[in-house]
Amino acid sequence: MISDSTVQLGHGSGGQMMKRLIDEVFLDAFEAPELHAGNDAGVAALPGTGRIALSTDTFVVTPHFFPGGDIGRLAVCGTVNDVATSGARVRYLSCGFILEEGFPLDDLRRICQSMAETAREAGVAIITGDTKVVNHGSADGVYINTAGVGEVPEGSSLSGAACQPGDVVLVSGTLGDHGIAVMSQREGLAFSTTIESDAAPLNHLIAAVLDASPHVRCFRDPTRGGLASTLNEFAAASNVEIEVDEEAIPVKPEVQAACEMLGYDPLQVANEGKIVAVVPADEATAALEAMRANRYGTDAAIIGRVRDAGESGPCVRVRTPWGSTRILDMLVGEQLPRIC
Amino acid sequence: MISDSTVQLGHGSGGQMMKRLIDEVFLDAFEAPELHAGNDAGVAALPGTGRIALSTDTFVVTPHFFPGGDIGRLAVCGTVNDVATSGARVRYLSCGFILEEGFPLDDLRRICQSMAETAREAGVAIITGDTKVVNHGSADGVYINTAGVGEVPEGSSLSGAACQPGDVVLVSGTLGDHGIAVMSQREGLAFSTTIESDAAPLNHLIAAVLDASPHVRCFRDPTRGGLASTLNEFAAASNVEIEVDEEAIPVKPEVQAACEMLGYDPLQVANEGKIVAVVPADEATAALEAMRANRYGTDAAIIGRVRDAGESGPCVRVRTPWGSTRILDMLVGEQLPRIC
Repeated sequence: MISDSTVQLGHGSGGQMMKRLIDEVFLDAFEAPELHAGNDAGVAALPGTGRIALSTDTFVVTPHFFPGGDIGRLAVCGTVNDVATSGARVRYLSCGFILEEGFPLDDLRRICQSMAETAREAGVAIITGDTKVVNHGSADGVYINTAGVGEVPEGSSLSGAACQPGDVVLVSGTLGDHGIAVMSQREGLAFSTTIESDAAPLNHLIAAVLDASPHVRCFRDPTRGGLASTLNEFAAASNVEIEVDEEAIPVKPEVQAACEMLGYDPLQVANEGKIVAVVPADEATAALEAMRANRYGTDAAIIGRVRDAGESGPCVRVRTPWGSTRILDMLVGEQLPRIC
Repeated sequence: MISDSTVQLGHGSGGQMMKRLIDEVFLDAFEAPELHAGNDAGVAALPGTGRIALSTDTFVVTPHFFPGGDIGRLAVCGTVNDVATSGARVRYLSCGFILEEGFPLDDLRRICQSMAETAREAGVAIITGDTKVVNHGSADGVYINTAGVGEVPEGSSLSGAACQPGDVVLVSGTLGDHGIAVMSQREGLAFSTTIESDAAPLNHLIAAVLDASPHVRCFRDPTRGGLASTLNEFAAASNVEIEVDEEAIPVKPEVQAACEMLGYDPLQVANEGKIVAVVPADEATAALEAMRANRYGTDAAIIGRVRDAGESGPCVRVRTPWGSTRILDMLVGEQLPRIC
């Protein structure tokens, strides 16, 4: 017998129990009038620039709560950041929950409050949603999908394929914090300092960089696969070589130490509150200053440069403190499953 | 050791294996240039009427393949229909997969082909996506979320709260087919006739009804909870009573027989290719003809009427063939879990 304090199969029925769950948990947490209208689609104003950006992300992280964040904050930040990287003004989110029978309703309320707070911080509204309940044992408590819609300003054409030789690569802060924070929590690892996830909505930071550096080539948030995946994606899409300077890449000493202990490369570890930007060289300083002026960009740094692809084709190289270079590859298999 | 013919944890890594999965399965199935651009958000034209409709649905149905459809066709139809019920022209979908380690890649390809075909039929494009992989045992093979965006025509204001006394209620075809089809497949029940799911994209049917009946009050697809939930939602939102005529409600004899055997009320069973419409009385015939002219509306019928709410408040009544009426309530708990 499952008590009323946990999710039950009936909460996914489309009937009275589901209505109660929606009223008492979701509508209590999320305030958008478009959601409260109670129709199957949220209808909302979008003045219309002629183009939209649409992105989606599903979150399956375990544990659900970790230092610096939780699955709800991640679910909002991840999609807000993905939409914002296109240069769009992020406006609306949808939210789809998969709940496991037996999941504590108090945990669900806490997750929804975190989503609502993060959405307020980002200035976006959750205007539509869906809930499914699966049998006990068929999910790990809760999975959350969000999709986000934004307006793309006229003339904007950011793309990972737009990098040009001579461009400069920036990162908005320290790398590896999120992955190591979740991993430490999951494995019960104790370090002298608590490592916190960097989960944060970066749409305001991105807007500030776009104001300061109007010719930004592209943004990407280095989540799964870390900086290594992001730079390799840029290099391949733009057919260029990217060289980064290992000493210039900001990594917290405690994250570096944890990575060494666990055998990870911090450049391949997931971040949830960092942005990589490629900008023309003459806009690099302005872009860096714009990042540093934002609360989530105080540790921003210029970390590298785009070059012509050599004979071996597009690749990413890391220049070590000793002057040598090594190839920075994308992860082959899985390093940190269920990190987001 | 999991062979290459199944999903592995590395397919969710953000690294090389994930890139291969995206290239060889998703990009092979889905053709939109916005998706093939390979950025974190799909950027697409939306001429802009000033308002968008956004909806989302997650699909956790078991089994994944059933007579008349599969989880992929459902995932496209469900969201297309939810967006279309707002009166919007559905344009773009996002798609988020949760894959279980060990899930056969051939099944995933088949599901993606089905999604692509259904999207083509509906005239919508899948322009962005996400893939997560969870450990063996943490999901039932595959869960799929879709979110959809459409343009809302100027002046359109469909809402479940817009029903007025005197309005007429229509349904676009037979009820209960989807729920009974999935249930039969799941339980290995054999009936003399194979009952097929009605899963279908209804955006073209809805557009035709809107053309024929410009003052439609609202549409809703009676999925989980069936006709009973949809009509009770309309009654509560509009503060009216809705009376339907049991004999006028189309139900296939084999579905009726299966419901009697299993103890279900076909009015509470899920549909995935039917629409309920409430229209002014003087537009009811035109709306009915528009439905019947569509391939998915050949069995459409006028089934009831909206009245003033009596002293007991908003409710739904069914008039039986014997002239008596009974209250049609929303399901309380769960009848058919994992039906969509």
